[in-house]
Amino acid sequence: MKVEDASLMTPAAWRERFRTGNWHRPTAGLALGYAQANLVILQRELAYDFLLFCQRNPKPCPILEVTDIGCFEPKVVARGADLRTDLPKYRIFRNGQLVDEPSDIRSYWQDDFVSFLLGCSFTFEGALQAAGIEVRHITQNRNVPMYITNRECQKAGVMQGPLVVSMRPVPASNLVKVVQITSRFPAVHGAPVHIGDPQALGIVDLALPDMGESVDVKAGEIPVFWACGCTSQAVVMAVKPELVITHAPGFMFITDLSDQGLAAF
Amino acid sequence: MKVEDASLMTPAAWRERFRTGNWHRPTAGLALGYAQANLVILQRELAYDFLLFCQRNPKPCPILEVTDIGCFEPKVVARGADLRTDLPKYRIFRNGQLVDEPSDIRSYWQDDFVSFLLGCSFTFEGALQAAGIEVRHITQNRNVPMYITNRECQKAGVMQGPLVVSMRPVPASNLVKVVQITSRFPAVHGAPVHIGDPQALGIVDLALPDMGESVDVKAGEIPVFWACGCTSQAVVMAVKPELVITHAPGFMFITDLSDQGLAAF
Repeated sequence: MKVEDASLMTPAAWRERFRTGNWHRPTAGLALGYAQANLVILQRELAYDFLLFCQRNPKPCPILEVTDIGCFEPKVVARGADLRTDLPKYRIFRNGQLVDEPSDIRSYWQDDFVSFLLGCSFTFEGALQAAGIEVRHITQNRNVPMYITNRECQKAGVMQGPLVVSMRPVPASNLVKVVQITSRFPAVHGAPVHIGDPQALGIVDLALPDMGESVDVKAGEIPVFWACGCTSQAVVMAVKPELVITHAPGFMFITDLSDQGLAAF
Repeated sequence: MKVEDASLMTPAAWRERFRTGNWHRPTAGLALGYAQANLVILQRELAYDFLLFCQRNPKPCPILEVTDIGCFEPKVVARGADLRTDLPKYRIFRNGQLVDEPSDIRSYWQDDFVSFLLGCSFTFEGALQAAGIEVRHITQNRNVPMYITNRECQKAGVMQGPLVVSMRPVPASNLVKVVQITSRFPAVHGAPVHIGDPQALGIVDLALPDMGESVDVKAGEIPVFWACGCTSQAVVMAVKPELVITHAPGFMFITDLSDQGLAAF
């Protein structure tokens, strides 16, 4: 497939392609203009606590859809899709341990599974770029730097843990615009949780992220922090559930929702 | 107590007063500037379906807080308050039938209760009035007219039913402002769900609301419809749960949240 063809492919066409198992790269940049989503699949017995955790912590865990018990079709965000096959790569965790990274989870599927699709920052990064604002880790072709903060999330039942944030450096002259633009997208982490001093979040050294890769912060740039979807995965894993399935990092679910359709205003 | 004293009373002072059982009027107009909330208390076995219903239908069912199982303190919206005593009047439903309207529910409390506090339109009505926009049912000293529509909510487990809306007539010249103002308050039903022709919602006669009271619609005014919190109560009652407790209509829970603090932008 040529690159010029790829730019025309719809979300449904991409999901069809992933379904064949014939795709081994991350989904960033695919089906531009359409929202991509984090996936967390867990058993019904944990679903109430996790749903409540997301309700209490909407910035790190913005819910796009929760499927019915045992249902693998995400009827709200991609009618007709199959969550068992339509992502390029998954991660299987047993008792909190990564045990497999398949491209198809039909053999793992259980009737008591509930799937959570959570918003992903690709959407607001696209909006920032469309407004002419550089997103440093994209420019540097790196994974976004992520940090475990000293802020505890609101706990819910057995689910608890610290807030994880991502960081993007922003020139002071663009701070207002960056707050305005990302505020429009509460369904994908929304406005920043903090602007400026990393130590206010308990972050000692920006050059040493807990996950992802560090990026350059230039003179005159202010570090800006957003709640990160990794928060929810860390919280679930801490419970060491019998069986949890997620997308593999960077290999997201491509929805039929347009990025702009997610704007709150 | 004189009226001028009442206007200075804090939410906590009002809750303290209700706790004595010595208050028999609705809460509209009390503690102006602070958000009031709908209350639905149900058993844990129904809480997942109801929470999911609210997640899937955020316009009629905007969640301000879900308490921990068995906990009667709403830690997010009013730390230190007691949901068993701090509303002036409750309704007790057994198997879907209203059986009591007490001012204190301590004798009904169960360890498996989960309390849902949902946003109330008082907040956006205050914002409309602050912007100089008349709210007709307040001017006419009536209950807001409510209508059962032909739109089905997204079902969740056993919870399903039609969307219920409230209606406020707005002069055409104010429509834009009314959309802008209420869009700022997604936590209290947010933007309208429909502007104009009632028949598009299956409403045959505005003069015959299903609940509440009709209001005058003057020449040049357009009916504007918002999702209504009554939706959730109707949906819960349809299941005829063994035991459900709600606030009595108009006798809301007064939170410590400022109305303006609920604005999304």
